[in-house]
Amino acid sequence: MGRLTARAPVVKLSLDGASRRRADTLVVEEPLEIRVGGRPLTVTMRTPGHDVELAAGFLVSEGVISHGGQFAAAVHCGGPGTGGPGATGTDAAGSAVAGPSLRVLGTASADGNTYNVLDVTLAPGVAPPAADLARNFYTTSSCGVCGKASIEAVATVSSYDLSTDTVAVDPGMLVDLPDRLRAEQAVFDKTGGLHAAGLFDLTTGEMLVVREDVGRHNAVDKVVGWAALSDRLPLRGTALMVSGRASFELAQKAIMAGIPMLTAVSAPSSLAVELAANAGLTLVGFLRGDTMNVYSGAERIRM
Amino acid sequence: MGRLTARAPVVKLSLDGASRRRADTLVVEEPLEIRVGGRPLTVTMRTPGHDVELAAGFLVSEGVISHGGQFAAAVHCGGPGTGGPGATGTDAAGSAVAGPSLRVLGTASADGNTYNVLDVTLAPGVAPPAADLARNFYTTSSCGVCGKASIEAVATVSSYDLSTDTVAVDPGMLVDLPDRLRAEQAVFDKTGGLHAAGLFDLTTGEMLVVREDVGRHNAVDKVVGWAALSDRLPLRGTALMVSGRASFELAQKAIMAGIPMLTAVSAPSSLAVELAANAGLTLVGFLRGDTMNVYSGAERIRM
Repeated sequence: MGRLTARAPVVKLSLDGASRRRADTLVVEEPLEIRVGGRPLTVTMRTPGHDVELAAGFLVSEGVISHGGQFAAAVHCGGPGTGGPGATGTDAAGSAVAGPSLRVLGTASADGNTYNVLDVTLAPGVAPPAADLARNFYTTSSCGVCGKASIEAVATVSSYDLSTDTVAVDPGMLVDLPDRLRAEQAVFDKTGGLHAAGLFDLTTGEMLVVREDVGRHNAVDKVVGWAALSDRLPLRGTALMVSGRASFELAQKAIMAGIPMLTAVSAPSSLAVELAANAGLTLVGFLRGDTMNVYSGAERIRM
Repeated sequence: MGRLTARAPVVKLSLDGASRRRADTLVVEEPLEIRVGGRPLTVTMRTPGHDVELAAGFLVSEGVISHGGQFAAAVHCGGPGTGGPGATGTDAAGSAVAGPSLRVLGTASADGNTYNVLDVTLAPGVAPPAADLARNFYTTSSCGVCGKASIEAVATVSSYDLSTDTVAVDPGMLVDLPDRLRAEQAVFDKTGGLHAAGLFDLTTGEMLVVREDVGRHNAVDKVVGWAALSDRLPLRGTALMVSGRASFELAQKAIMAGIPMLTAVSAPSSLAVELAANAGLTLVGFLRGDTMNVYSGAERIRM
């Protein structure tokens, strides 16, 4: 587990002239560089903790892997000079190492490094990611990018077909999801600064996992990565609940993980709705109180 | 101007069994590929409109340019076959072109292309961006990335020194900013799906510009780009007000544009506070009602 919160001095001001100094609790944000086979792939600003899940989920979202067996190992890179068998490159000493049968490790290094580089080893035979992931997804037309091309790209890359997932759910279960997610948001209550994503089994109603992060896409990647590393992909019969809005990117992540339903407290974007309709993803927005808006895939909701 | 909203059918459900179909208004999200000198630099999911500002602001944020004179032209790439003098590459026909004295253009192409590729020409002598912008900012230590290295990288790259900006403001002006920003958020009121960023003159109280976008970083880039293209950088004596949270990335954007104060409705992250303190940026969070939290640079607020 990383540090989820930090303390910082703050001056609290109010217009009546009151001013007091105290310590405030902040959500921690730190960069994480994800490498694959020693080669830098991306840098994301995230809340430390569940970094291996984050990396695994990111690779699922980007179409590099589609199940956990393709993810062989992950090594946190410590500070220079700590040494270790998992070192990648000449100046990056491994502070933790994962063998072929052990996927997830992240022990402390002697120098207190905050573990902001994670090197992933893919299973033999898994193709490494292309140099420019963004262009993989967004570029297919000769002129470059557009929403339609982006949607087609997701459809082409995803390993899973949502149209065969005939799970159906009562609206009554859905309206409870926001409160159940919020009840798990321990850090949000302290800082007001975290997004949450939760995964629910739509048949049993069970909450499978909840992750929080300063970035909404990271929270979803951590959920998907948790599922990948526990060999649960595709996530048939589940709903992904997010604390904020539903963007194209979040809909893409659901589809890549085989999740048939995305529910959000707030508004979806136009492209999220188009992608959901195209891929057979049920998209629910404005899930608040006793009401919801169903933008696509309404057949999975018993009315 | 691009399309800010789109209409889509929605099923509105409530637990009492009511279900009705109607049309809902959604915020438009579309990818934009930003090219520099014909070479793809980044793809961002944004709300169409003010794309040239978005590109200019992005380049300021990334340290590629520091004033508008370094931004020579921008060309929206239309669909194949429309032709035009601004064409870049063999398959990308320009639908609009900017000459040396005309920076901003974006006319309609015959085929109704939605303009999702924008090619920027830098002024002579301006170095093109490095291949991997993210690593420029986040990587300086031998092991890769960490918050401290990221902060040092911003300090190194920024052209502007906030410590010489001695503007001071009454708290009474600050507490009005959220409502003034919200009053300009026409699209948010229709869709609930947009972030807003506004720029205020702290001496006169004037609201200089407001931009909305499905991505909070895009809204800020559009504000900064507007300022760059009207030769207002550095933005001394101003405050950047954002509708959501204050992340490292937004603090970085303020610093790169020479803005001495960042105010947010919601929580800052730990790294945003550290960066602000390091760079001399006044950071105000939880600006709601008559109260606010001042995390750094309190000397600019008259108490």
